[in-house]
Amino acid sequence: MAATQTISITINGDPKEVNATQTGTELFAENKDIIAVKINGEARDLYTPLHDGDSVEAITLDSVEGVAIMRHSCTHVMAQAVQELRPDAKLGIGPVIDDGFYYDFDVEKPFTPEDLKDIEKRMQRIIKSAQRFQRRVVSEDEARAEESDQPYKLELIGVKEAEIDQEAATEVSTGELSMYDNVDREGTVVWKDLCRGPHLPNTRYIKAFKLQRTAAAYWRGSEKNPMLQRIYGTAWPSKDEMKAYLSRMEEAAKRDHRKLGAEMDLFSFPDEIGPGLAVFHPKGAAIINAMEDYSREQHRKHHYSFVQTPHITKGHLYEISGHLQWYKDGMYPPMHLDEETDADGQVTKQGFDYYLKPMNCPMHNLIFRSRQRSYKELPLRLFEFGTVYRYEKSGVVHGLTRVRGLTQDDSHIYCTRDQMKDELKSLLNFVLGLLKDFGLNDFYLELSTKDPHKFVGSDEVWEEATNTLAEVAKDSGLDLVDDPGGAAFYGPKISVQARDAIGRTWQVSTIQLDFNLPERFQLEYVAADGSHQRPVMIHRALFGSIERFFAILLEHYAGAFPAWLAPVQVEAIPVADEYTEHLEGILHRLEDALVRCEIDRSDDRFGKKIRNASKSKVPFTLIAGEDDRSRNAVSFRFRDGSQINGVPVDEAINGITTAIARRAQISSSEDFTAATGISQQ
Amino acid sequence: MAATQTISITINGDPKEVNATQTGTELFAENKDIIAVKINGEARDLYTPLHDGDSVEAITLDSVEGVAIMRHSCTHVMAQAVQELRPDAKLGIGPVIDDGFYYDFDVEKPFTPEDLKDIEKRMQRIIKSAQRFQRRVVSEDEARAEESDQPYKLELIGVKEAEIDQEAATEVSTGELSMYDNVDREGTVVWKDLCRGPHLPNTRYIKAFKLQRTAAAYWRGSEKNPMLQRIYGTAWPSKDEMKAYLSRMEEAAKRDHRKLGAEMDLFSFPDEIGPGLAVFHPKGAAIINAMEDYSREQHRKHHYSFVQTPHITKGHLYEISGHLQWYKDGMYPPMHLDEETDADGQVTKQGFDYYLKPMNCPMHNLIFRSRQRSYKELPLRLFEFGTVYRYEKSGVVHGLTRVRGLTQDDSHIYCTRDQMKDELKSLLNFVLGLLKDFGLNDFYLELSTKDPHKFVGSDEVWEEATNTLAEVAKDSGLDLVDDPGGAAFYGPKISVQARDAIGRTWQVSTIQLDFNLPERFQLEYVAADGSHQRPVMIHRALFGSIERFFAILLEHYAGAFPAWLAPVQVEAIPVADEYTEHLEGILHRLEDALVRCEIDRSDDRFGKKIRNASKSKVPFTLIAGEDDRSRNAVSFRFRDGSQINGVPVDEAINGITTAIARRAQISSSEDFTAATGISQQ
Repeated sequence: MAATQTISITINGDPKEVNATQTGTELFAENKDIIAVKINGEARDLYTPLHDGDSVEAITLDSVEGVAIMRHSCTHVMAQAVQELRPDAKLGIGPVIDDGFYYDFDVEKPFTPEDLKDIEKRMQRIIKSAQRFQRRVVSEDEARAEESDQPYKLELIGVKEAEIDQEAATEVSTGELSMYDNVDREGTVVWKDLCRGPHLPNTRYIKAFKLQRTAAAYWRGSEKNPMLQRIYGTAWPSKDEMKAYLSRMEEAAKRDHRKLGAEMDLFSFPDEIGPGLAVFHPKGAAIINAMEDYSREQHRKHHYSFVQTPHITKGHLYEISGHLQWYKDGMYPPMHLDEETDADGQVTKQGFDYYLKPMNCPMHNLIFRSRQRSYKELPLRLFEFGTVYRYEKSGVVHGLTRVRGLTQDDSHIYCTRDQMKDELKSLLNFVLGLLKDFGLNDFYLELSTKDPHKFVGSDEVWEEATNTLAEVAKDSGLDLVDDPGGAAFYGPKISVQARDAIGRTWQVSTIQLDFNLPERFQLEYVAADGSHQRPVMIHRALFGSIERFFAILLEHYAGAFPAWLAPVQVEAIPVADEYTEHLEGILHRLEDALVRCEIDRSDDRFGKKIRNASKSKVPFTLIAGEDDRSRNAVSFRFRDGSQINGVPVDEAINGITTAIARRAQISSSEDFTAATGISQQ
Repeated sequence: MAATQTISITINGDPKEVNATQTGTELFAENKDIIAVKINGEARDLYTPLHDGDSVEAITLDSVEGVAIMRHSCTHVMAQAVQELRPDAKLGIGPVIDDGFYYDFDVEKPFTPEDLKDIEKRMQRIIKSAQRFQRRVVSEDEARAEESDQPYKLELIGVKEAEIDQEAATEVSTGELSMYDNVDREGTVVWKDLCRGPHLPNTRYIKAFKLQRTAAAYWRGSEKNPMLQRIYGTAWPSKDEMKAYLSRMEEAAKRDHRKLGAEMDLFSFPDEIGPGLAVFHPKGAAIINAMEDYSREQHRKHHYSFVQTPHITKGHLYEISGHLQWYKDGMYPPMHLDEETDADGQVTKQGFDYYLKPMNCPMHNLIFRSRQRSYKELPLRLFEFGTVYRYEKSGVVHGLTRVRGLTQDDSHIYCTRDQMKDELKSLLNFVLGLLKDFGLNDFYLELSTKDPHKFVGSDEVWEEATNTLAEVAKDSGLDLVDDPGGAAFYGPKISVQARDAIGRTWQVSTIQLDFNLPERFQLEYVAADGSHQRPVMIHRALFGSIERFFAILLEHYAGAFPAWLAPVQVEAIPVADEYTEHLEGILHRLEDALVRCEIDRSDDRFGKKIRNASKSKVPFTLIAGEDDRSRNAVSFRFRDGSQINGVPVDEAINGITTAIARRAQISSSEDFTAATGISQQ
């Protein structure tokens, strides 16, 4: 008997000699949580043959990669169930997305909620039957033969990498093509799908899943292609995790800014105006004004120079900047203007295409170069609340988080290379201070670095800039996540990711270096030695966009804003009509201090008024009855129902303005006492 | 001998019996200042025959009407002179305009400055020759025969009144057609022109005139017509008045906001963006910010509700409002969006035409009707700094006073009819207070009333509203000028006309009632009795547009702004480099108080720096040398060169912030002492 052949591999970093026939299945047999392996850095099926020199790492079900593999396997289970119920269903693609997955189907009739229940039941049965996922390499011709009745799969076979969008890449890779067979306990192939893999060892590893909703979607996202029916689902390594996720979703739905925006009368999207174009009602605009007032004051203190530029321009400007070459799809179509014609309608003077601006930077560059600049003027920080318009497809427009018209708190900073580090450092301090003042305290940074295939500027400048960004990010003490190759072609970027009250992460501020526009606009300053130098250009938006930041705050606070941001800061409720005058006197004084006040003059009874105030999430409800009036006092009621009664009017006014100035979150009498020292006597 | 026939007339209101052959020429023979008459309210030549019952009034050369007649006669003299020099010149129209007149000519070569001198000389000769202006009534056919070589005049013959623009109306009237002959002392007709008249008795009444400039202009203002050459001139009842006018013009040229805007680095109109689209540089935006900060604070104090609306909308909104019917020429062309096509390019879903907004009102109406409104919410005052875009022809675009992109401090007030009077009253107080705070103290009001041929709404509502406006205007104590028939079709209007430092009048604020849009948008509120009522709607802009008001202020102050508006409030100049640090310390403290400061770090010598500061019109120049530093003091220099030396730093900072808070105009040490009490010890 020949000696068993052994190979040298590393397992989770440790060198090991193993039998050449052994795979992950045998090596990790004792740990049922291990569902796949990473071989030389690439995720593969657990049973993938190993070779001498391989580095092997275990992928557990509860790791980020493990969950993604499990969700991908779940899409196969769902597609199998759908085809059992609708044998004619043609398969689109079935990728993993944040917190879940979907699969697109070409079916005659859209799926109903009852269909989803039936599909779920079938899926349960498939999962219980512990079907193995078995990989098979096929040639392009074999794949075409096997998928001859699946027109969408056929279309994907042989598509070059560059043409595959990220989602379709789960089906095919640029290397070999493979089919995955679902094999039942008897060894029969009961279903198969063209797929890159990897997958779970078998369907029983799917511990918890749920189908969530259906939607219509164009094949490969193009309006020119057939409309498919998409089913969204979620899947988790344990029932508890799924339960936690679903309750997070429920909480998120309660905080949905679109829902709160309507309930609180903050904003709307009138049909007469069009999708993605928000109209802010008085209470919404009051919040925006508070945000902008804060921002203006901070930008003055940080030595920014305010500028103002139009919302439209001749296309020529975006030819200089390059936007018309690489961003045209994101721009509104042109308006053709200034053409002149003679009596016969013949064009005597060519006109111009005017465009809505999608970005402010080119206009700021015109201001920079409107006269000669000296190094003594740098850093020059041009700032504008610049409203830009971007043509988002109507399908992706979503509330205030994905709009067509948005106002950036936009600045472009021009500095010397020597000034870059200090500037970035103070910028990061500025942004973190701002986010904290708005009540966001939990963030990490993401550093997007050069895509080696797509960049302008010299390697040396990229390296210097990237190192500087990394250094500044590290100095901040925050977690730094790398996003290698994620930079735009014109420069590296730091983005600030903030976690909200229910643990969701939002990208807010961005600090973006730009090596492209200073060249295109031939920006220059005169250096100390008299030579002409190109400035470094930094794009930065701290809110990101006012609309999106507004939505994030609204969801973060679930509408219960801190005192300084609350649309109505004080709601006054007289115990009976005769106390209205007393409250009006107090409100006049508060209004002189620019506190936003309302008095409830409705015909509702007192109890109803109190409930309405509580529902409206106003931080200070002021109540007055006989006791209060006779003692020139007023009573406070807070969001949690707690009260502080009989506060002398001067003290009350002072307390409210103090709490606002301190940007305190006042939800209870304790909060108010902590912020102002005022307590029940 | 038959008795001389007499007729009964009134002369300047006094009844008189006169010989039927007598005309103004004989009746006013003793007064050479009387150059024409008004017969039954219509201006006519002095020699016009009179009839029994006529009311006759004298028109003197120095009256408003007299000056206009003289300027009109001057256009004839100019046209005669031009045709002497260029016999082939075809005549366009020659109307009177503010402060002067023009005439358009179709000539082969444009006029040169030398041509203007030659024309002026010929005009002098014609004036001296005392040619009489002799009116002759002609039929349309006769006029066509006489003007057969004048194609433009031919075009005007027989044009209906509605098609005649105001300027062309000087040539023809809707009544009879007339020719005016210029008759020399020998009785020979030396020149003639189709003209409605009236004219001076003879050319010698033209006491002072000057040709000013030439410009190209399309015939009847349309790009489709031939380009003519226009000569502008001015004429006055006396040489002194013309001299005064020309020096006012010279002063105005010095204050031209376009010139100051460039010199002071306030704004520009980059070619890359397009005509009429201003870009505000940091110093210009600083002024705008100060204006907006002031406005925001005042609007809060006056209980306005801020809103925010997009710059674009589907055309549907402007169909509802009617703008696409009656304002389309003033709007930018549409952008076609949201269309969907299939794989063959066939349109599967119709898209929409989106427009840039030319006015904010329709969007504010959407907010008003976004939910049910109660009478308890009224008056509801929606306010926005709304940037609108209007397609002004490139020929009429002028600096910041006539732009294509402008920001209105725009509000729409919805109130009950009962509230209208109080609302208008407080509104007028608000606007006058605002104008005074900006240093404009001399105004009058203009009341535009119903055009009986063109209006919507009932007579009764118009009468009530007009009476209310008139009452409120009278209560203000300001001069009230009537503009009968001048209202827009949708409601009467008060406009505030402000006189600037050199006596020019600018229309600034407007308060406009609107009976049209509440109907079109079906706006309603629930009244106290539960019935649904239509609110009264008031449009008002106090600055008018920020851009235009900015330009008016810049010209009014000739760039030397009061302390609170100055783009740079403090310029610091160390006597030598070693005193820079001392000044920087002071500047930091001022910047903390949000004072806009600069320090002159240039390599210029001290004297040059002082001259630069003075040229830049900064209100406070702070100087520090050894004396100041050693005593922790600083020296002030003001615009007129006066100084206050050795002011202790605390006192200096306090003085500057006090002068700014008081909105004082600080041009001298006396001004500073008056505003702050600080004087030379």
